[in-house]
Amino acid sequence: MSRYTPDPALDLVLERTIPVAPDRVWAAWTEPELLMQWFTPAPWKTVAAELDLRPGGRCVTTMESPEGDRYPNAGCYLQVEPNQLLVFTSVMGEDFRPAAPANGAGGLPFTARIEIEPAADGGTRYRAIAMHAEEGACKQHADMGFADGWGAALDQLVALMS
Amino acid sequence: MSRYTPDPALDLVLERTIPVAPDRVWAAWTEPELLMQWFTPAPWKTVAAELDLRPGGRCVTTMESPEGDRYPNAGCYLQVEPNQLLVFTSVMGEDFRPAAPANGAGGLPFTARIEIEPAADGGTRYRAIAMHAEEGACKQHADMGFADGWGAALDQLVALMS
Repeated sequence: MSRYTPDPALDLVLERTIPVAPDRVWAAWTEPELLMQWFTPAPWKTVAAELDLRPGGRCVTTMESPEGDRYPNAGCYLQVEPNQLLVFTSVMGEDFRPAAPANGAGGLPFTARIEIEPAADGGTRYRAIAMHAEEGACKQHADMGFADGWGAALDQLVALMS
Repeated sequence: MSRYTPDPALDLVLERTIPVAPDRVWAAWTEPELLMQWFTPAPWKTVAAELDLRPGGRCVTTMESPEGDRYPNAGCYLQVEPNQLLVFTSVMGEDFRPAAPANGAGGLPFTARIEIEPAADGGTRYRAIAMHAEEGACKQHADMGFADGWGAALDQLVALMS
């Protein structure tokens, strides 16, 4: 896995050591039936996941609000290194086609970088980074509750997979 | 190289068999001192090229008008398969970071796919595809002279490398 140094003005970072082995973290991110169980902080749910796991492959997750409204989020995988690194973006769809604003890219364009490294105790040194084009978009994502939301989802991943 | 079927409503395609070997076509696209000699239809010139040739690597080319005005274009490599396939996009910068509109992504967002296949005579079956998010952007790129511009640049590549 290539190294990446976050830019504090443009990136949001969630970093934690978790008691889940790297291959189990990878499975949680890449197998639809697992991802649907942890990906969205309760009481929201993920009710569908299509994951075409290859660079240029499309990923679509559909979230459902407590009221039953559904919100699909489409993106594209960029780097797929099993048990180590998963990079995807909201600004592209299948085969790296730029996403239309209607696809959600206009709302909050970001690239996510999920780093998975073995920890000493058989667990994982986990780092999730959300990269933005501009400081305003980064702040908007922070204000939307990145730390709480991604942290709560990770809690659910740990509860499911450990 | 994975197959790709263009979408006539969203993609522009330049396809031609050229008397240049695949490895020479690859060199023309990936070595700055070569790229600068053919990339921009005369009387415009390419006066600088920084090519970090890896998925997530930044590519910047600077064009100069006959009047001496300079126009940098930044993008990001997505797939790098030597002598076969080069995919890059204007909607991201280094390490797949979404590009700010000021970077040119707001102007004409597209992903380019350069396919290089051996032809029977030692030449290359060359296919360049520009992929867009929406029909409007595709038509805008066509109206800007995609076919003439990319065709004239390819003529220059052939003249340089054959």
